[in-house]
Amino acid sequence: MSTIRTIAFDGDDTLWHSESYFEATHAQFRALLAPHVAGEVIDRTLIETESRNLRLFGYGVKGYVLSMIETAIELTEGRIPAADIRTLLDFGKTMLDHPVELIDGVIGVLDALGDRYRLMVITKGDLFHQETKVARSGIAERFDRIEIVAEKDEATYRRILSRVSEAPDRFLMVGNSMRSDILPVLDLGGQAVHVPYRITWAHEEAAEPRHKPPGFYAIGDIAELPGLLALIDGAAA
Amino acid sequence: MSTIRTIAFDGDDTLWHSESYFEATHAQFRALLAPHVAGEVIDRTLIETESRNLRLFGYGVKGYVLSMIETAIELTEGRIPAADIRTLLDFGKTMLDHPVELIDGVIGVLDALGDRYRLMVITKGDLFHQETKVARSGIAERFDRIEIVAEKDEATYRRILSRVSEAPDRFLMVGNSMRSDILPVLDLGGQAVHVPYRITWAHEEAAEPRHKPPGFYAIGDIAELPGLLALIDGAAA
Repeated sequence: MSTIRTIAFDGDDTLWHSESYFEATHAQFRALLAPHVAGEVIDRTLIETESRNLRLFGYGVKGYVLSMIETAIELTEGRIPAADIRTLLDFGKTMLDHPVELIDGVIGVLDALGDRYRLMVITKGDLFHQETKVARSGIAERFDRIEIVAEKDEATYRRILSRVSEAPDRFLMVGNSMRSDILPVLDLGGQAVHVPYRITWAHEEAAEPRHKPPGFYAIGDIAELPGLLALIDGAAA
Repeated sequence: MSTIRTIAFDGDDTLWHSESYFEATHAQFRALLAPHVAGEVIDRTLIETESRNLRLFGYGVKGYVLSMIETAIELTEGRIPAADIRTLLDFGKTMLDHPVELIDGVIGVLDALGDRYRLMVITKGDLFHQETKVARSGIAERFDRIEIVAEKDEATYRRILSRVSEAPDRFLMVGNSMRSDILPVLDLGGQAVHVPYRITWAHEEAAEPRHKPPGFYAIGDIAELPGLLALIDGAAA
């Protein structure tokens, strides 16, 4: 195994909190519809609506708000008052306008790794909102490159590595989503470190590889990353 | 003036139709609200809402739909039925799902220029929808590179040119928006060809430069581009 040269971090729920805002909004959405529908029906229908709309909307807050509105109208058979739909619009604006809150330990990790590796962000979702978040994060200048992509699959990673002239076996991806951050990078011949977040969005769920393939690592906290890299690079040297 | 080496095309309303779908949807939106409000009030309020939301939503269909819903609730003082809001959601889905219709003459232009220049697309807006449009356009493989950006300002063009190692004076941008495609490229020392579309979105309006700066050209139809380039390159040779 070669020595790692480039480390890329996922953004949402790896460098900064994201899913927790969706979770909080979801609780407010449930409360708003509580007079009309049971909570489990709300949860199930919203996930179904989001899945159906993903093909047209892609990822991000704006599509989420449109799916909430669609779900609310469907579940109340059109009885939801316009004032409540206005409230859903405001939920979305609050999410989009929220300050970026870094995950504990991120700054220390970037301090520890910045001199020894080329650091990148590879984040998925709405281009405009992701750029806003990167700008507000205060850590943009720590990275050589920031890539915002619509989908994180093997082809996307291959294209990015080709653009930065990096070999897959010198590349390591760090992220919270097995489906988007880990599995496609391993398939490409790269290495990947899974750092789970407290919550995983239903659409990002994927099982851990049953037999740990070479290049797959899992840690419980991003602060453990520098220690893990010392081990990996020590073993490769 | 140096010989042109890289030509970049704007996407929406330069390579393919876009604003005409917004225009058609806007007419349907007006018709939907006609029982409640006068047409001029609808037009003015929607533009105001869009302008106010641009900072949070960025460009694209999803933000447009959210602004239509907000406008409809505001102008009817909450009296709009949920079924009509459901119709606005469907307008958005129809726009997102629409086949990509190339502007007349585009294929001939790409045929004429593909062997002699490095061709790119630099398009602004929703990442997911723009990628879908590029894929559906059938012309993606004609371009060396496709850049989807959140905002087209001088810094954006500078970053792209640096990534492709191109000098500004060897770069020419083709597009319908003075504000996004022409002025920032001229400011950077590049050349730019304005090809107006039938309709210009209010937010993209900007005056033509009063004294034509060097490197600024305007044609009425994209089919005139190969002829113009022959003149430009002839003059530079």
